[in-house]
Amino acid sequence: MNFGSDNLYGASTPVLEALIAANDGALAGYGGDAITKRVEEQFCALFERRVRVFLVATGTAANALALSACVPPWGMTICHAESHINNDECGAPEFFGHGAKLAPLPGVGGKITADAAEAYIKGLSKASFQMPVHAVSLSQVTEAGTLYTLDEIAMFGAVCREHKLSLHMDGARFANALVALNTTPAEMTWKRGVDILSFGASKNGCLAAEAIVVFDEALATELEYRRKRSGHTLSKGRLLAAQFEGYLGNDLWLNNARHANAMTKMLATGLAALPGVRLPWPAEANELFPILPKQIDAALRDAGAFYYPWQSRSLPEGVHVGADEVMIRLVTSFATKQEEVEQFIGVAKAAAI
Amino acid sequence: MNFGSDNLYGASTPVLEALIAANDGALAGYGGDAITKRVEEQFCALFERRVRVFLVATGTAANALALSACVPPWGMTICHAESHINNDECGAPEFFGHGAKLAPLPGVGGKITADAAEAYIKGLSKASFQMPVHAVSLSQVTEAGTLYTLDEIAMFGAVCREHKLSLHMDGARFANALVALNTTPAEMTWKRGVDILSFGASKNGCLAAEAIVVFDEALATELEYRRKRSGHTLSKGRLLAAQFEGYLGNDLWLNNARHANAMTKMLATGLAALPGVRLPWPAEANELFPILPKQIDAALRDAGAFYYPWQSRSLPEGVHVGADEVMIRLVTSFATKQEEVEQFIGVAKAAAI
Amino acid sequence: MNFGSDNLYGASTPVLEALIAANDGALAGYGGDAITKRVEEQFCALFERRVRVFLVATGTAANALALSACVPPWGMTICHAESHINNDECGAPEFFGHGAKLAPLPGVGGKITADAAEAYIKGLSKASFQMPVHAVSLSQVTEAGTLYTLDEIAMFGAVCREHKLSLHMDGARFANALVALNTTPAEMTWKRGVDILSFGASKNGCLAAEAIVVFDEALATELEYRRKRSGHTLSKGRLLAAQFEGYLGNDLWLNNARHANAMTKMLATGLAALPGVRLPWPAEANELFPILPKQIDAALRDAGAFYYPWQSRSLPEGVHVGADEVMIRLVTSFATKQEEVEQFIGVAKAAAI
Amino acid sequence: MNFGSDNLYGASTPVLEALIAANDGALAGYGGDAITKRVEEQFCALFERRVRVFLVATGTAANALALSACVPPWGMTICHAESHINNDECGAPEFFGHGAKLAPLPGVGGKITADAAEAYIKGLSKASFQMPVHAVSLSQVTEAGTLYTLDEIAMFGAVCREHKLSLHMDGARFANALVALNTTPAEMTWKRGVDILSFGASKNGCLAAEAIVVFDEALATELEYRRKRSGHTLSKGRLLAAQFEGYLGNDLWLNNARHANAMTKMLATGLAALPGVRLPWPAEANELFPILPKQIDAALRDAGAFYYPWQSRSLPEGVHVGADEVMIRLVTSFATKQEEVEQFIGVAKAAAI
Repeated sequence: MNFGSDNLYGASTPVLEALIAANDGALAGYGGDAITKRVEEQFCALFERRVRVFLVATGTAANALALSACVPPWGMTICHAESHINNDECGAPEFFGHGAKLAPLPGVGGKITADAAEAYIKGLSKASFQMPVHAVSLSQVTEAGTLYTLDEIAMFGAVCREHKLSLHMDGARFANALVALNTTPAEMTWKRGVDILSFGASKNGCLAAEAIVVFDEALATELEYRRKRSGHTLSKGRLLAAQFEGYLGNDLWLNNARHANAMTKMLATGLAALPGVRLPWPAEANELFPILPKQIDAALRDAGAFYYPWQSRSLPEGVHVGADEVMIRLVTSFATKQEEVEQFIGVAKAAAI
Repeated sequence: MNFGSDNLYGASTPVLEALIAANDGALAGYGGDAITKRVEEQFCALFERRVRVFLVATGTAANALALSACVPPWGMTICHAESHINNDECGAPEFFGHGAKLAPLPGVGGKITADAAEAYIKGLSKASFQMPVHAVSLSQVTEAGTLYTLDEIAMFGAVCREHKLSLHMDGARFANALVALNTTPAEMTWKRGVDILSFGASKNGCLAAEAIVVFDEALATELEYRRKRSGHTLSKGRLLAAQFEGYLGNDLWLNNARHANAMTKMLATGLAALPGVRLPWPAEANELFPILPKQIDAALRDAGAFYYPWQSRSLPEGVHVGADEVMIRLVTSFATKQEEVEQFIGVAKAAAI
Repeated sequence: MNFGSDNLYGASTPVLEALIAANDGALAGYGGDAITKRVEEQFCALFERRVRVFLVATGTAANALALSACVPPWGMTICHAESHINNDECGAPEFFGHGAKLAPLPGVGGKITADAAEAYIKGLSKASFQMPVHAVSLSQVTEAGTLYTLDEIAMFGAVCREHKLSLHMDGARFANALVALNTTPAEMTWKRGVDILSFGASKNGCLAAEAIVVFDEALATELEYRRKRSGHTLSKGRLLAAQFEGYLGNDLWLNNARHANAMTKMLATGLAALPGVRLPWPAEANELFPILPKQIDAALRDAGAFYYPWQSRSLPEGVHVGADEVMIRLVTSFATKQEEVEQFIGVAKAAAI
Repeated sequence: MNFGSDNLYGASTPVLEALIAANDGALAGYGGDAITKRVEEQFCALFERRVRVFLVATGTAANALALSACVPPWGMTICHAESHINNDECGAPEFFGHGAKLAPLPGVGGKITADAAEAYIKGLSKASFQMPVHAVSLSQVTEAGTLYTLDEIAMFGAVCREHKLSLHMDGARFANALVALNTTPAEMTWKRGVDILSFGASKNGCLAAEAIVVFDEALATELEYRRKRSGHTLSKGRLLAAQFEGYLGNDLWLNNARHANAMTKMLATGLAALPGVRLPWPAEANELFPILPKQIDAALRDAGAFYYPWQSRSLPEGVHVGADEVMIRLVTSFATKQEEVEQFIGVAKAAAI
């Protein structure tokens, strides 16, 4: 019963097999190899247009590189106050951005609104003592396991066009969002105004593989240099590319995400039915954040369940974690087994009053 | 006949097998896993003392992170003018070092001398308009395929102690140097004054695995943050750690390096015997840089040999590449086959007058 | 009736005279001159201990340099959300700090509390994905014209000692705070735990003169390099030093501040007596932020008064600016004339219902 | 007899008078004042076209800001190995440029050639592991006191156009160069391809006043932010602007430079006539670097003369400083008195054999 994170398991079998298959033979270095080129073409097909793709090994690198290409060192990126880029990357956006700043906005369930973003921009002075906003970053899935609807993304797209900003999507859990919304990569991104995307794969079946997908060709030259100088251009490019071949082939990525989401749905349904258990937000993808009576938490820990306690300043108005309660984070992945979920619910149920 | 680089091939079989073996099961993220801890212990044993180890995916990251821990943003690192950090990492040392500068010195055969380093330091003003030197970086193997002797390293160690500098070793080809000098990791590093080491493995049998080996415990906390903020802390730490288990186990790394060096030695012997072929420096590890008559170069290209033409400003006094000649770089690796070498020499021999 | 800012006027007469007096003769460059040395000694006397002093031309430079010496690029500085460093310096702290981050806390009247700072620190993970706090920065006077009491400063000092943080004071209006609290430079700073101070003078009678006052000798070498590489070491050091001689001599700085504060006090008393006028916070130094009926604002504008409308998210609980009201900022300085104040109050009074 | 530097004296009288005249009255802050605007117009007239002007207090700030606007963090600027930006600004170009690198070229008499610059560019790989050149920086006057002719500048302009580079001129001694070449500001800059200029005034009669003169309007917005975030936007803009009014008015700047150059010419003529004294380069502006017998040096020191000993790696082929010789740097300025020069020559003459 390990619901600690979606990075606890190794590679999905087809990803590992692709790695093994790609091991033999001489290939050009630094991403000049045939596998990388094939993956680039695959991304173009996936997004139904010409895109530029930069493979890197970590989501932090993908996010920080993407933002650095959108925002000058004296500019700001609007994001949610509890976003990964703001809290969990040890200042990578500020490092890669040479001091570029994040403008964190509050918002229920890990989501900000296009209106709040616009109001923030309008509240700034145009004078040079205040840093101008150059980008908005949305996490899809959010840190609260919620989703932006296509319409909501489009509203951010419109604000960004209006104010000449770039729209970045942190898609560390892109596949989970995609299958939850039952849409296509194109619809969830550039057709709604997204300019640059961190396309995550490590959490959903790879070992270490992320893609910066760029819808603006003009940024490509710059990103090539930025990636190299940050040490993120692998000499043996096949390592990243092969993982993506395994990941994108035969809909593995979508199937993995569907499984993870289904496991969370099952957890959500089972837990929500228990007396005293509340879900502050809907569990829309592969994470849920139940507020539990402490005795259920204790029973689960005793039974060997692993997960993290959680805190959030983006609870809905009026929702509080009581003195006898605890809020926890449960994450499911491609590797989560249905039996684990059933056992978890069973233990919780037995402990509920 | 591919002598283009030592990064053209995938993983050595035992490295791939270690990756496969490490794939199953839940493991703590971000390097908190048991495999990473085992590898850290292995490094301590290897270096015969307590060391701190930071695994990363690229040599550029290893070098730039290591230097950034030694040199403040207003400081300089003395290095060879043709070193990898100065020419081939797109400014990564300057990026990670926040503007810290490289002070490039000339030197025959890719080597600088401790005397030249000391003279450079003494020639600087102590006033704050000149950046003070805080580190010296040696490449072992150098970019010219040559080696620093243990005594030479010790002389740099002494200069660094005297002037309170850190001594960094870029060991992208550490194993090749080690077996060529027939010495131990401890003797070639901290026992001669090296403070921090980029321990390369990608070129010699891994896919993407480098270790920053730190002999000064005080630098460890800082490096943890620096690695994370640069996006070089992998969430699934097993990817890097497993490669190292495969690499360091059963002397694979030493055997791979011995093979690569032997292939270069065979090439050197074969080519040096041909009329019109000169080696500007001894081929001490797994690279050689012959100066060839153009007709030999043409014959080799025609026969399908792959390698890069080369230029260097560190040729010995009096050695020039003539109008009818070309200087080339040949690199051998764990994957180089003896037949390739024999074929190469055969073609060259047939083309020699 | 110009209450726009305290940087609208040139130099106080004795400051200008000191500049003129210092103009003749050859002096060593880059702060090596006798006037700079005299000023350094004067600061030691003023603070009743050995201090290191770095003169610069702007408050932004003083703040950003001071913070950069306290916080590594992966660290954070706690400050008020509406502090000058967070909102009005175009990211200078992030630039000089190489991506170091500000952790903005809310707080009524521009003030944060030591308790809130400590709670924030305790809420952070110790893991390397979160940036650790390395400093707290207090503005004394705050951006809301309020003051930290000596006891409040001491509480921050205690938190900083406990958590091994540096305590910075942004004293752009240091003199105004000092005379308002009727205390000494030593009591308001290092005796309460302040480690480094931006000692402002430009707003209170100089043209461009600020001093970084360092209570920790260890930071001095570093700051020398940091100042030079940021272009803030003037070749003709006498420009800054002479201003300070004029400023600190004959208690000019204290008298200027007393005058400015008295003018604000007069404004506050006069305005607070009018129906419909409210002061959200006490006017403790040389700024006040009345909330006025719009018709008073209009009458003042018509009469030629100059000042800025203001917005703040740090109004006390329950205080709002109504639809018929406007909040404004009034700043007085050494150059403010009593007649201006009287005229201003007169116009407001006539317009009040 | 003080020939130490041209920053040893205060302001030229008309500059001081302009400062005094500008002191009274309320003026808009941050360069929004009328004096700054007048100075901007004056620069347009001076350069016979629309230019954008950014006033700052130091030459280091002017150079580093100018270069940062031309070169991305992964780009390089070609400059002379002994240029001020490379050796004497404590890494300011690297700091403001976020790690952008200087590519130092050798060259006799402090001058590089357009051919050498072009050869350097052509020798670089186009691949992303090597930093591309984005700018060339020329010092006019050079650090060796020599000048680029108008034709030489034009040749750099052509290379920069061809390779899409920016051409920067470090004009710390712009006026000295201008009167020496007997040309106009326009002819010496944009008409020869210069894109951005550091227009120095501090050394030639101001206290602290430099102007970044931009011939490319597109760079203006960016520079506004860059200046502010580096702490170089003075709140009381009149301080810098008034100095320039005094400096540019009544040809003060040109007359000051003519005087300084004439004093150097007199020194050069007098010294060159002495047995054993050599000038390695022509003394074209206000600095000269004689190689003297040690006994002359000793006699001058004994007589109270002040100047710095000098070293250079850009001596002409075959010129060496002998064991009994010393090379020195003599700098004259607007404040140098003819009697000092005559006395200096007299002492030297008496000491010559």
